Amino acid sequence: MTLKQRWQELMANQPLKRKLYGIIFGSDTRLGRMFDIVLMICIIVSILITIFDSLFTNPWIVGSLVVLEYLLTAFFTFEYLARLYCSPNPRDYVFSFFGIVDLVSILPMYLGWLLPGARFMIALRSIRLIRVFRVFKLFSFLEEGYLLMESIRQSFKKIFVFFLFVVIMVICLGTIMYAVESGQPGTQFTSIPTSIYWAIVTMTTVGYGDIIPVTAVGRFFASIVMLLGYTIVAVPTGIVSASMVSVQTRKKIRKEKLDKDELNGEK
Amino acid sequence: MTLKQRWQELMANQPLKRKLYGIIFGSDTRLGRMFDIVLMICIIVSILITIFDSLFTNPWIVGSLVVLEYLLTAFFTFEYLARLYCSPNPRDYVFSFFGIVDLVSILPMYLGWLLPGARFMIALRSIRLIRVFRVFKLFSFLEEGYLLMESIRQSFKKIFVFFLFVVIMVICLGTIMYAVESGQPGTQFTSIPTSIYWAIVTMTTVGYGDIIPVTAVGRFFASIVMLLGYTIVAVPTGIVSASMVSVQTRKKIRKEKLDKDELNGEK
Amino acid sequence: MTLKQRWQELMANQPLKRKLYGIIFGSDTRLGRMFDIVLMICIIVSILITIFDSLFTNPWIVGSLVVLEYLLTAFFTFEYLARLYCSPNPRDYVFSFFGIVDLVSILPMYLGWLLPGARFMIALRSIRLIRVFRVFKLFSFLEEGYLLMESIRQSFKKIFVFFLFVVIMVICLGTIMYAVESGQPGTQFTSIPTSIYWAIVTMTTVGYGDIIPVTAVGRFFASIVMLLGYTIVAVPTGIVSASMVSVQTRKKIRKEKLDKDELNGEK
Amino acid sequence: MTLKQRWQELMANQPLKRKLYGIIFGSDTRLGRMFDIVLMICIIVSILITIFDSLFTNPWIVGSLVVLEYLLTAFFTFEYLARLYCSPNPRDYVFSFFGIVDLVSILPMYLGWLLPGARFMIALRSIRLIRVFRVFKLFSFLEEGYLLMESIRQSFKKIFVFFLFVVIMVICLGTIMYAVESGQPGTQFTSIPTSIYWAIVTMTTVGYGDIIPVTAVGRFFASIVMLLGYTIVAVPTGIVSASMVSVQTRKKIRKEKLDKDELNGEK
Repeated sequence: MTLKQRWQELMANQPLKRKLYGIIFGSDTRLGRMFDIVLMICIIVSILITIFDSLFTNPWIVGSLVVLEYLLTAFFTFEYLARLYCSPNPRDYVFSFFGIVDLVSILPMYLGWLLPGARFMIALRSIRLIRVFRVFKLFSFLEEGYLLMESIRQSFKKIFVFFLFVVIMVICLGTIMYAVESGQPGTQFTSIPTSIYWAIVTMTTVGYGDIIPVTAVGRFFASIVMLLGYTIVAVPTGIVSASMVSVQTRKKIRKEKLDKDELNGEK
Repeated sequence: MTLKQRWQELMANQPLKRKLYGIIFGSDTRLGRMFDIVLMICIIVSILITIFDSLFTNPWIVGSLVVLEYLLTAFFTFEYLARLYCSPNPRDYVFSFFGIVDLVSILPMYLGWLLPGARFMIALRSIRLIRVFRVFKLFSFLEEGYLLMESIRQSFKKIFVFFLFVVIMVICLGTIMYAVESGQPGTQFTSIPTSIYWAIVTMTTVGYGDIIPVTAVGRFFASIVMLLGYTIVAVPTGIVSASMVSVQTRKKIRKEKLDKDELNGEK
Repeated sequence: MTLKQRWQELMANQPLKRKLYGIIFGSDTRLGRMFDIVLMICIIVSILITIFDSLFTNPWIVGSLVVLEYLLTAFFTFEYLARLYCSPNPRDYVFSFFGIVDLVSILPMYLGWLLPGARFMIALRSIRLIRVFRVFKLFSFLEEGYLLMESIRQSFKKIFVFFLFVVIMVICLGTIMYAVESGQPGTQFTSIPTSIYWAIVTMTTVGYGDIIPVTAVGRFFASIVMLLGYTIVAVPTGIVSASMVSVQTRKKIRKEKLDKDELNGEK
Repeated sequence: MTLKQRWQELMANQPLKRKLYGIIFGSDTRLGRMFDIVLMICIIVSILITIFDSLFTNPWIVGSLVVLEYLLTAFFTFEYLARLYCSPNPRDYVFSFFGIVDLVSILPMYLGWLLPGARFMIALRSIRLIRVFRVFKLFSFLEEGYLLMESIRQSFKKIFVFFLFVVIMVICLGTIMYAVESGQPGTQFTSIPTSIYWAIVTMTTVGYGDIIPVTAVGRFFASIVMLLGYTIVAVPTGIVSASMVSVQTRKKIRKEKLDKDELNGEK
């Protein structure tokens, strides 16, 4: 039997495939649970390495972190291939949300050899932390998450309209502020894009203080921008709150109806 | 036939007028759609020029941008005149919201020859971006926008009362802070308007950090201002949220009633 | 007839009293309206003087502003006495909200001769701007204001509990931050009150940037404080929103009930 | 009778125990009320000492503050032991919320002899201020507090999901920003943890201004982070508001049902 034949046999080995599926995708068996926990730890370790790696200068520590990162990437690569192998419909897995996230979390290391900037994409591994809910069987948390998503998805159009409005406003206000402040000596409003950046920093109430108006007119105008931002911050909050109240009410009504129908059915 | 007669004939040429109307105002025909898309691109290009124009110093680039801006303004002027010509009721168009916006977006260039500051009004062209919804037939987005407007319009009176309250508060707090901090050496609270500006920057939680209290009493007082602002930020949010819930409920009730009436009608 | 007798007669002169009452308190007659508008202008001028007075150094302008302020105070004093004289129940007026505000708005000038700091109390005159609603007959605005007040009054207890909680938290977090950062060279956390001030500045998302953590532990801890503040900012907003929804619902139910009762009465 | 026997008798002395219980735990008798008020004053004094103690350098004042702190700790220790002694079920008290807070408020002084950092735990004494509601019989405030707690507890899962999302986002955005800005001369984005700290400071709209983007790409990216944070701040607010509306509605429905049942019962 050649190596190729052995491989084909392995690939066709249904019981092994089913067992592997239980371990990797399921979390009911003891092995499945253990695999999930080991995976979670590996993900957290790999994120921590990415974050703190730039803090160390000692060559020994840097060296061992690099080795550890290679090992973790190898493990994630193996995991991805195993998922591909044992999933009943590999195509569905590849294009599912988690399939893409899993792929994205192993690519940066390989791309890092080609593109130096790609290494930072390792941070995308943190998306895999969402799996924590499945691992610890916190399904009610996931349900709440779906409710949240539903509320946000429902108010997406309103928020989009709102954003277009904010963009238009920020362009107008930034340009006006540039017209007001740009003539001053030592002004920080050196160009229109800078002024628009200032308008965003101010309207979102972040207020770094790196660009500030110095003239009386500029300050008066900035006060109006702030008070506007103050009122406008209320709009998306109102959108999401109203949507949440409505999603909650609908859920409750549906539940009450179900309870009633059950009661009627019992009679 | 003189030139004048030809012009009068053209102005009276009904089929041309109707066709032009279809192209410029409508977006159902292929030509109408294309015109809308070209217009949208011109608007975006013209906004980008206004924004980034202050970044370039190379005379060649500045020169070509100026020429491009002239061309775009010429196009917008022609478009405005065409809209005037082909609209069935030009008066209505001139005084409609978009009529004013369209006029405002071509004026700055001409006014710029007279008043140097008027050039910055070009930023007002960004208001024309609202047309994006009509171009891409995103009418449901527009409807959401109306709902938003309705909510804000409904709570306008409450927000006005709230603003008067904020203005009174900011004057009082700014003056008190001036009384507290102005005597200190190296203080940044140099005048009452500056102190009021500080009160606005603080209460809206922008917090640039250009004007900060340094005495113990000033800091204690500033803490109270912040905690007040913290609570007060809740008020407009509450206003808009409550109004949105009520607008939504009313819409739902109306819809349910319509459904019921329809059902009854069918019986 | 002595001067004293003439004065007593004047004080007892009912028709004059009634006419004066119509002018000063009412706003239905032409004279009453005019008086209100003149008063409003005087209030605004007096606030503007207080605010901008510290900006001028020219002795001529300063001098005329001082004279103007004396005249306005004399006018407000006369107005206060006239209100006292013509009101049917002077005691009620003196202890009413506007009675106190009116008194407070004339006192600072007189107290200013005794206490130098009292002059700044002139800013309290801005409270009189609330009268603007009565002057311009914007009663529906006033009604909205009462609704706002009702919502805030209703949620007062919740907000008080919330504030006590914020105070406790800010003391704990400030002290912990002092323990973490105080040992560092060049630290800005020089004392516990300063650290508590930092905690307030951070939790309210004002963020001046005058006091900032520099150690890794301090920054980690500060991040937690910010995320906490982020979540906590939601609480009073939620309180006020919920209260507004409930006030609105109650108002609507009452109105519907009234409409129904009316309908039944008509049958 | 030996000392030991006397002690045992004292411990078994039921009437004394009951009387002491009335004084320490109750607040109906004159003595019980007085004890509560004295305790409250001691707590406030002890917190004020902790806060302002770092401001004094005069050895006499520092010395007397230390003595006062010892006396207060002794008083709190005695109070804790008395509570233990007279409570009918000491075990329940020790593990109750207030039992733990009471213990924690006396430990720091003793631990301070062993661990120098433990002294700062004295700030935890401020938690005892919650007792203020019982002392002044503000039970309706406490009830509102429970309602608040209920709303927060109910939305705990949603807020947890939201926080995980924020943590993932902050890691991704911080890393991207590091990739964008780290190469610049004089950049403040010196490491990934620093960039994540920046992302938190920006997204929560605190905006200290100690770390700011300087490149055009960095500023553009920062603008997106701010606008994102702006929208995201709406989510927990929406969660808590929706939850409060639902808690309020449920309370009202329960009350209405009770009223109805009572009415039916009377018939």
